[in-house]
Amino acid sequence: MIVEVLNTGSELLLGEVVNTHASWIGKRLFPLGLRVSRQTTVPDGPAIREALAESSSRADIVLVTGGLGPTTDDITREAAAELLGLTLAEDGQVREAIGQRLAARGITLRERMLRQAMVPRGATVLPNHNGTAPGLYIPANVTDGLQSPHIFLLPGPPRELQPMFEDSVLPLLGRVCGGLVPRECRIYRVVGMGESEVEQAVGLRLSADPAIEVGYCARPNEVDLRLIGLPGALEPAEAAILEALGDRLVSRQGEEIEEWIVRRLIHLSRTVATAESCTGGLLAHRLTNVPGASGVFRHGFVTYANEAKISDLGVGAELLAAHGAVSREVASAMAGCALRKGSADYALALTGIAGPGGGTAAKPVGLVFIALASSTGETVCREARFATDRGTFKQLATQAALDMLRRAVLDK
Amino acid sequence: MIVEVLNTGSELLLGEVVNTHASWIGKRLFPLGLRVSRQTTVPDGPAIREALAESSSRADIVLVTGGLGPTTDDITREAAAELLGLTLAEDGQVREAIGQRLAARGITLRERMLRQAMVPRGATVLPNHNGTAPGLYIPANVTDGLQSPHIFLLPGPPRELQPMFEDSVLPLLGRVCGGLVPRECRIYRVVGMGESEVEQAVGLRLSADPAIEVGYCARPNEVDLRLIGLPGALEPAEAAILEALGDRLVSRQGEEIEEWIVRRLIHLSRTVATAESCTGGLLAHRLTNVPGASGVFRHGFVTYANEAKISDLGVGAELLAAHGAVSREVASAMAGCALRKGSADYALALTGIAGPGGGTAAKPVGLVFIALASSTGETVCREARFATDRGTFKQLATQAALDMLRRAVLDK
Repeated sequence: MIVEVLNTGSELLLGEVVNTHASWIGKRLFPLGLRVSRQTTVPDGPAIREALAESSSRADIVLVTGGLGPTTDDITREAAAELLGLTLAEDGQVREAIGQRLAARGITLRERMLRQAMVPRGATVLPNHNGTAPGLYIPANVTDGLQSPHIFLLPGPPRELQPMFEDSVLPLLGRVCGGLVPRECRIYRVVGMGESEVEQAVGLRLSADPAIEVGYCARPNEVDLRLIGLPGALEPAEAAILEALGDRLVSRQGEEIEEWIVRRLIHLSRTVATAESCTGGLLAHRLTNVPGASGVFRHGFVTYANEAKISDLGVGAELLAAHGAVSREVASAMAGCALRKGSADYALALTGIAGPGGGTAAKPVGLVFIALASSTGETVCREARFATDRGTFKQLATQAALDMLRRAVLDK
Repeated sequence: MIVEVLNTGSELLLGEVVNTHASWIGKRLFPLGLRVSRQTTVPDGPAIREALAESSSRADIVLVTGGLGPTTDDITREAAAELLGLTLAEDGQVREAIGQRLAARGITLRERMLRQAMVPRGATVLPNHNGTAPGLYIPANVTDGLQSPHIFLLPGPPRELQPMFEDSVLPLLGRVCGGLVPRECRIYRVVGMGESEVEQAVGLRLSADPAIEVGYCARPNEVDLRLIGLPGALEPAEAAILEALGDRLVSRQGEEIEEWIVRRLIHLSRTVATAESCTGGLLAHRLTNVPGASGVFRHGFVTYANEAKISDLGVGAELLAAHGAVSREVASAMAGCALRKGSADYALALTGIAGPGGGTAAKPVGLVFIALASSTGETVCREARFATDRGTFKQLATQAALDMLRRAVLDK
């Protein structure tokens, strides 16, 4: 079955908003045996109808996001009804739900908001528990004599779309594509190797097997090796991958390195503390994004200023004066202090220059020292250079820090 | 001029990777007077050629990302050459650059990597300072008798594409679209109002002016109101917006709330400290994403465990025992302690239940207390409920915290 995703919204093309729907939806369709063959974004307005017509001519299932709201630039509902020749009628239950929702928030119901209660003939309403605009499911071939795919119209805001997708869309899709045999997808996350090195190490063996689809994706400081095949087909390939990649393999199921670490530390009953300067809290944020992080992470210090390194962590003022905040000595001291202050088994510390300002010839933008202290008394420090923008610097530096911890607990 | 963006990569459709190129490129084209009229994503493989042919039939400029690397699933270069009937030949300079780059990293040059040195006849090489695969610019109508748009082939990894875009693509586009009059785009970020309330407050006045294009975008806890018009056309509308929205308007140029706050605090010579439990460092991370944050943010505490609240911040153990960590009292104490420990003018503290675990009937998942202490001695605390997933919870809770600080410094 051919699936297309059509995202509507001028904000996506103007660049104000990053489109997260396409990947979010792609991930949820895969277990059903469905893959998105094309994703299109068009601005609000007449282009919606044109793109919907094109997708409908190619696909069995079309998932449309956005343009269901109350404002004048929301026209997806009307565009779909017009394309399929369906009349729109107000749905009493939807009208009531909108009224109740607004009343609970103390907002007056206005005429314009009732556009959201209009439903094309033959469509099923998909309730929205996080907003006023319901989703709509228009079954295939709903108009006599007109071939059309299964069309889902879904709200634009992720916190409205996502629960609706899980609650209403997935069950409907499960019925639509009942007979499909789901493929299995495994993502092997590799650190410390380039894309072509990964292919060199494992690719020839893998591509010899026609039952396996192999893909590569280079990411900051890591490469994703992706295998897709029928259930059971991936087992022999996995054995070859494990042998060839060794400790450069972070995880097998596309698990983020922080997820792997939290799971591993829980298993080992160990804890980690963090002391961050240049990464400003991102390391703690990444660790605490993982459910269950509270079992292994208790203390984090964002010591952005020198006086914070002294007063909050206990780094020696003379050490800072002698070596400067961005130094191997201060990184190591920060890690040691965080370890003791946090009564932790491991402590990671970062100090560096995220930029764009603050660099010197001796200590340029992008320089970072990353230290890992452990309760066995050992502290190691790594110097790295990530000369890039501020955001990417924070990402790469925390990635390198997490990888130091990963290697430390790998064989424990 | 019609511009289309074509993103290639199975990982984007499988959902492993979020497509950030589309919005990033859209944002950079606007100042040239260019807007993306359609963005398409297709998987690696033959669909690339098909989609490129379609985009080429509609657009004057086509920007293609991905599929230029060394692995076997990278076929964009070959697909474009084939479509346009261009022969590929190895470029000596590119070959040399690849060799040097690999030598510096101690990697052996392999035959497969030299695919990246192949250049279609008539194309211009766009140097890649952050990877081996160069970009390519194929001018319009490069093949006699065949109408084709300006085609740019760009690498997939953002840290390779972005500098190349700034250094090479924008200057070339500037030449291609020299005569265009750039439109002006202003984004008014509004908190505390729904999308239709914003339209009710300002929309009628705005839509009466045919020279202005109005758009709305609902985001977590905020609404973006977008105006586009010729230079000068937006001034009268802006006056009306300022009057109608008052202090619910966060910023006028799509500035993030954290950017506004850092700029404002720098202006006021004030500082802010943070104490985070449930948001695990995201608040500090957001503040430190803003260049110049070190001038206003010095101390951040991620006190994820009760003992961290006691030992790192100095919250009273009896207070925690009496009210529990998730309470108005503890939030206020955390803010007060962070203020003193950080010698700051303001301190924000959050304590709550991010979920998915840890909720009770009295204190459900999503509950959060947000306190703001200021050096004038006043501490305010707000109770909120964001019943959603862990990631969105962290986003919404930090957004609410930042808005408390924003309002506190608005009229200072």
